[in-house]
Amino acid sequence: MTDRSPIEFWFDFGSGYAYFVALQIEELAARHGRCVRWRPFMLGAAFQKTGARGLSSTPLKRDYARRDWQRIARLLNVPFAPPPDHPQVALTATRLFYAVEEQRVDDAPRFARAVFDGYYSGVTSLSDVRPLLELMRDLGLDDQRAAGRIANPQFKQVVRDIGEGAVSTGIFGSPWLIADGEPFWGWDRLALLDEWLSRGGW
Amino acid sequence: MTDRSPIEFWFDFGSGYAYFVALQIEELAARHGRCVRWRPFMLGAAFQKTGARGLSSTPLKRDYARRDWQRIARLLNVPFAPPPDHPQVALTATRLFYAVEEQRVDDAPRFARAVFDGYYSGVTSLSDVRPLLELMRDLGLDDQRAAGRIANPQFKQVVRDIGEGAVSTGIFGSPWLIADGEPFWGWDRLALLDEWLSRGGW
Repeated sequence: MTDRSPIEFWFDFGSGYAYFVALQIEELAARHGRCVRWRPFMLGAAFQKTGARGLSSTPLKRDYARRDWQRIARLLNVPFAPPPDHPQVALTATRLFYAVEEQRVDDAPRFARAVFDGYYSGVTSLSDVRPLLELMRDLGLDDQRAAGRIANPQFKQVVRDIGEGAVSTGIFGSPWLIADGEPFWGWDRLALLDEWLSRGGW
Repeated sequence: MTDRSPIEFWFDFGSGYAYFVALQIEELAARHGRCVRWRPFMLGAAFQKTGARGLSSTPLKRDYARRDWQRIARLLNVPFAPPPDHPQVALTATRLFYAVEEQRVDDAPRFARAVFDGYYSGVTSLSDVRPLLELMRDLGLDDQRAAGRIANPQFKQVVRDIGEGAVSTGIFGSPWLIADGEPFWGWDRLALLDEWLSRGGW
């Protein structure tokens, strides 16, 4: 039997496959009596370290991924309509997430879900601060305080350190899930993670 | 309702995830009344065209893949013990496959399965001709004729053209499955392919 430690969910808001995990992970975790620890980070920074390239930097992979995202969205019956310049650099959304978490840790996943829902419905940016602050207000969160925090150089460094810490432990993709130390990379590993939690590993 | 056209299975013998598909695809296809068209090709040649790199060329990805292969093998209760120099360049095995197919098309999948089983049990090479010919003899295939064919420059070109043709239609990974024109990349898309065939697409 495994213990009941939280499932870590590392992601870049601009990762289409992370969006699908964001829609499904809380329900999956709850079935196993687990919480989810939402951890956005900048995947581009990880690529600089690993020498990998994003899906959207390779034309054939990008075309395949676009087709794959659409059919997964149809399968799950959810929208998938990010802005035309998808994937946007998610630095502002990532910093705001940690500003929310600093205020009240339980609000952060709710904010993350709203960012995912808004961005993949084509109504929220990941990089422009204005619509993201508006989204915070809609959720009843303190957007003015958050706006102040993300302008603070020390706070920016804290967020950078979280991402660099993740990469230094071997996280090089998004979405990236960790359960009891076991890593699962990709939306397509949800079924494997589910089985892993059911059996307590194998 | 879909028609009953064969499922195309494109793969590099040196691709660990292709091995798992090789173990599962015939059973999956049969449940949907489909045949499988086995199509080995040289993934390295595809990488040259797409600018992508293999899993094993990126240290972090290689380490993750090794862990992932082992846990999938334990899940499926199958061996996963390729030679230490895995992934081997599968040119000889690929040419021999098409030499077998040329003799009798139904023998080729049987040969491919034997190559996969042998290589991932650590007993067959993908590049040395001798153990591969021995494996052919064990299957009752005409190894001497095949040995002659794979030394023929025109035959080599035919095999090269098959792989280049695949890449030119957008196939850039292994395993790669196509059902009724719809592409599925990766072992982890078998469940999606299964659903796709059940519903006739969506």
